[in-house]
Amino acid sequence: MDNTKPKRNCLISIYSKNKRIVSFAKQLDRLGFNIYSSEGTAKYLKQNKIETINIQKLTGFPPIIDHRVVTLHPKIHAGILAKNTKDHEKELRQLKIPKFNLIIVDIYPVWDGIKSGNLEKVLDLIDIGGPSMLRAAAKNFNNGSTVVCDVRDLSWVVDRIEKNGGVNLEERKKLAAKVFKLMLRYDSAIAEFLSEDKKQKLRYGENPHQKGWFEPDSNIDPLAIQNFNQIQGKELSFNNYLDIDAAVFALSQVGGKKPACVIIKHTNPTGFSVKESIENVYESAWYEGDPLAAFGGVIGLNRSINENLAKQMLVGKNKERKFFEVLLAPSIDKDALKLLATRKYLRVLINPALKNPKPSINRDFKKIRGGILYQDSDVNEIREKNLKVVTKKKPTKKQIKDLLFAWKAVKLCKSNAVSLVKNQTLIASGVGQQDRKESCKIAVMKARDLSRGKSKSTPLDSVAASDAFFPFPDGPRILIDAGVKAIIQPGGSVRDQETINLCNKKGISMVFTSTRSFRH
Amino acid sequence: MDNTKPKRNCLISIYSKNKRIVSFAKQLDRLGFNIYSSEGTAKYLKQNKIETINIQKLTGFPPIIDHRVVTLHPKIHAGILAKNTKDHEKELRQLKIPKFNLIIVDIYPVWDGIKSGNLEKVLDLIDIGGPSMLRAAAKNFNNGSTVVCDVRDLSWVVDRIEKNGGVNLEERKKLAAKVFKLMLRYDSAIAEFLSEDKKQKLRYGENPHQKGWFEPDSNIDPLAIQNFNQIQGKELSFNNYLDIDAAVFALSQVGGKKPACVIIKHTNPTGFSVKESIENVYESAWYEGDPLAAFGGVIGLNRSINENLAKQMLVGKNKERKFFEVLLAPSIDKDALKLLATRKYLRVLINPALKNPKPSINRDFKKIRGGILYQDSDVNEIREKNLKVVTKKKPTKKQIKDLLFAWKAVKLCKSNAVSLVKNQTLIASGVGQQDRKESCKIAVMKARDLSRGKSKSTPLDSVAASDAFFPFPDGPRILIDAGVKAIIQPGGSVRDQETINLCNKKGISMVFTSTRSFRH
Repeated sequence: MDNTKPKRNCLISIYSKNKRIVSFAKQLDRLGFNIYSSEGTAKYLKQNKIETINIQKLTGFPPIIDHRVVTLHPKIHAGILAKNTKDHEKELRQLKIPKFNLIIVDIYPVWDGIKSGNLEKVLDLIDIGGPSMLRAAAKNFNNGSTVVCDVRDLSWVVDRIEKNGGVNLEERKKLAAKVFKLMLRYDSAIAEFLSEDKKQKLRYGENPHQKGWFEPDSNIDPLAIQNFNQIQGKELSFNNYLDIDAAVFALSQVGGKKPACVIIKHTNPTGFSVKESIENVYESAWYEGDPLAAFGGVIGLNRSINENLAKQMLVGKNKERKFFEVLLAPSIDKDALKLLATRKYLRVLINPALKNPKPSINRDFKKIRGGILYQDSDVNEIREKNLKVVTKKKPTKKQIKDLLFAWKAVKLCKSNAVSLVKNQTLIASGVGQQDRKESCKIAVMKARDLSRGKSKSTPLDSVAASDAFFPFPDGPRILIDAGVKAIIQPGGSVRDQETINLCNKKGISMVFTSTRSFRH
Repeated sequence: MDNTKPKRNCLISIYSKNKRIVSFAKQLDRLGFNIYSSEGTAKYLKQNKIETINIQKLTGFPPIIDHRVVTLHPKIHAGILAKNTKDHEKELRQLKIPKFNLIIVDIYPVWDGIKSGNLEKVLDLIDIGGPSMLRAAAKNFNNGSTVVCDVRDLSWVVDRIEKNGGVNLEERKKLAAKVFKLMLRYDSAIAEFLSEDKKQKLRYGENPHQKGWFEPDSNIDPLAIQNFNQIQGKELSFNNYLDIDAAVFALSQVGGKKPACVIIKHTNPTGFSVKESIENVYESAWYEGDPLAAFGGVIGLNRSINENLAKQMLVGKNKERKFFEVLLAPSIDKDALKLLATRKYLRVLINPALKNPKPSINRDFKKIRGGILYQDSDVNEIREKNLKVVTKKKPTKKQIKDLLFAWKAVKLCKSNAVSLVKNQTLIASGVGQQDRKESCKIAVMKARDLSRGKSKSTPLDSVAASDAFFPFPDGPRILIDAGVKAIIQPGGSVRDQETINLCNKKGISMVFTSTRSFRH
């Protein structure tokens, strides 16, 4: 310790009084600090034979209205907030205000009130003075303020003071950041408690034994789920929300220029199509996709539903009853609504923004054990000009349109994924696989199985998309042998040339996007 | 307005001065409020011909240290915080403090500083007095305080005062909640800015064109990713984090009693096994699972890695080079480490808690467009006593062990999923499918393809698990025809009896868990 320095000042205000704080206060006393403390803390330390200066002596103001206002005084806050400038120092001297170098505050445990569920208790436990001192001290870290909001930090902080004479700038910054982190948790818990209506309780989570909630954010995205108007049907389930999100993602990729329809099951598409008329596009998505898997799915459209379309949705080509759980559309005719109302459980959600759906630009995140993974939304759109043809054979104009659509479809699928597209319609997909060859195999198997009318050996005559590069030509070989005529993929494998050679040998075309589209 | 009532008091402190506040102040003046305002606001309103009471008159204390302390005064905070009790009212009268009924504060736009990236500017813009008044007023909403932290609310608030004489309790509560929501966003932005090191920038997100970050939480879960010690290899990627999370989930389900190994690719298992020795369990997970898909995966173990095991991991049975991206283990021998160090990109992560891994009890959440879906963790464990045998044939003791393990394996798989297990080892899985029949088909196809040595028509002689009920007997038929001898599934379909009849006819056993295990 440099004894020529003026005495340093410490401010202590502790809610949870215990021996730990006593021992640190003793150390600080020994290290030559003037210790100022709020009334309760002063009393407690005095009982433990540590003399401190009651801040009332500084403020000349007694605690009022049942101690609801104790530390909210300009002399205290000036002592915390003053900068290391001559002007400020002079002002403090004139007003006889100590400059606080070390601020230790343990705020009221509002969580105890929240656990009790009692509003009065929560409100009583909302600390105002403590957070004010903490935030002020944190704001001033670059002027020498050391702020401790977690008594567990006292041990190393006091150690630093003893050994190095103080806590360095970098460490003070960390302590300051910790204050704002504490405050955000604190105020977030209060906000959640006060707005019970915000987190909506769902029937359950992904499974009946898990509780589930939906918390709408306050963003103004017109396609946010809370901006859909549910006009009929059962309450949305946790898994409905997930599938609706996937359906909106699908439609936002194709926009509003042409009628589009997507059908989602377990977050993956069973059908996806873009056509000239809304009736055709629905028929393609349902029948040219996987009508078996579509059973119980979420259907999303970017055009109004008329009576004719509603009929198609309820009764199939062979007069069979068609069942689906959720319907999303920009609007719906009265007559169509009358028809759909006969299915009283069917959830119908209307949002005019579906007419011209745009991708979300909000940041995406995923929970893992220990924290959160954040990432930018995948708003990257691949257009014709981004494609690099790598084979001798060039794709036709029609194939290019299908390749671009197949890319949108594969972006929608869970990785690893391969999608097969024909006439702007998804005819099969191999999704969520552990390896790419398997995705190819599954996509082809499904397309074959689904071509019920035709022979299983008829060439598919489709295009294919892969969400990441092919590490080997084994996957493409399966696709080509089944009759795939053009492939879109990112490219970038060390073995790209082998795959290109295969395509050249088989006389099909391949284009690279130079962009991957994993979606887990 | 009830003219017999005493004049009400309003406190205004506005950072962004504009005409909007002028018009509202005029209205409040007309409605008979005494308007107190902080110096800058008072000046601005005066320019616009509205006389207000400068709070300095109330406090008798001038703004000090460059206005860093203006409103932090006990008289102001007592006026905000006093309850509607006789004692408090008396105290206010004695101290000549007005009781503030309406508190309007527009805090400093710290976001402007954050956008600029300039630390000094951020610190200067951290508001202390404003938040203190807002939080105090919010705390006191049930004593008549109406708090406005967003000037856009002034329109309806002033309207209510004019029409109903005030804002009702429910609305005041909403305004209070809004304060804490604002503060959590405010302090969260500051915390993030001050702790650049907290959100760790990743090389990129799921795809190279998306930025990615990992933000560790502050929980003390020993298996939180930040409690793993990376002792060698490249930086973890976004997708590594996801796969590590799945690997830890897998191991936490089987615990530490017996050696266990899991291999993850794209969040799904390619291998998963529990055996008596760690070398055997690794060999089973790799070779009896899907060794092709395991290429480039994440391997997790619940036992220490010795030299012998390390050798097995690097070089295969046929002397082939085996490649994997991440290795997780509770510990590692020196000799093993020396061997693994020859693969300098290989990420090796050590965490002693893997010796006896426990499930996470933290709440899970998923981002969707418009908000967040929360749910309890799926910590439900199915034991033998939870099983209900529904077939004439009862599973053998060995089959029960395999069925319970198949259930753990299918819980790990992305839905829809079917897992095939033999001798406590996952031999194939059909994951992430849009329909259950397809999952059965894929699982069988993979198991067939993988039985390279044996004939493709050899009965699998395994057990199977399905993560949700079979809606029809078509899926089980595929499994049974391939040689599956026992099936575990939740049960609960209206057609359960058809599936049970099929099992009885084919002479296999089936058990119900009564619990679903979707994982999307």
